[in-house]
Amino acid sequence: MEYSTFGRHVAMDVWGVKYDRLNNAEWLQTQMVQAAETSGATVLSVQAKQFKPQGATVLVLLSESHLSIHTYPEKGFAAIDCYTCGETVDPQTAVNYMVSVLQPERVYAKKLVRGIGEMKVEKAQIRELNLVR
Amino acid sequence: MEYSTFGRHVAMDVWGVKYDRLNNAEWLQTQMVQAAETSGATVLSVQAKQFKPQGATVLVLLSESHLSIHTYPEKGFAAIDCYTCGETVDPQTAVNYMVSVLQPERVYAKKLVRGIGEMKVEKAQIRELNLVR
Repeated sequence: MEYSTFGRHVAMDVWGVKYDRLNNAEWLQTQMVQAAETSGATVLSVQAKQFKPQGATVLVLLSESHLSIHTYPEKGFAAIDCYTCGETVDPQTAVNYMVSVLQPERVYAKKLVRGIGEMKVEKAQIRELNLVR
Repeated sequence: MEYSTFGRHVAMDVWGVKYDRLNNAEWLQTQMVQAAETSGATVLSVQAKQFKPQGATVLVLLSESHLSIHTYPEKGFAAIDCYTCGETVDPQTAVNYMVSVLQPERVYAKKLVRGIGEMKVEKAQIRELNLVR
């Protein structure tokens, strides 16, 4: 059986996130797995690391590629990636789920289209921020 | 202690790689750890998955962020990412190491500069391919 190399990769930087949300690797792991499953991806395994004095990383290995987050709680910052191969899973669904639970004040994102030859950079479709919080 | 959110993320698609190099999660894990260490990064943990009938994923969790590879041996294709936060580790060193061991025929890459506000897309500095093989 052969699989398509076509894949979509959303890289998203979020700012203005509350410290406690970003400094809890266990909670982030739960949210990242939920984000993957919400997008229809299949979670195969997870690595999570709580850094001291603060910060967390979660890497989720998917059948369809990966989902990652690195956080800087003291800066209210996190870098999130979701890369999914094939047509069935849209990584934007996963990153939008993370936006909904992290509630950042600002989001910067790029979408890379991969596995097609020259890599294309496109605008990512990120959900509108709920500014009333 | 606070850390800089500045980070560099190289996304690289490689083509024309021999099947056996891409269909060996254990060998790829060894190479990915070496790539990370060559760049000066600190490896904290690794997830590796061998897919059937072919394909592999390796996710390396670094102190400085992550290094990932997803392979499609039947297409000679792999998607590699290296994202490192801070100034000390250059992700291009890690992806160049992977180019040197995978020996692809074609490489397409983008470099994202992250953690600075609007994400910047730059040209990645990838080593010249050795076309005499």
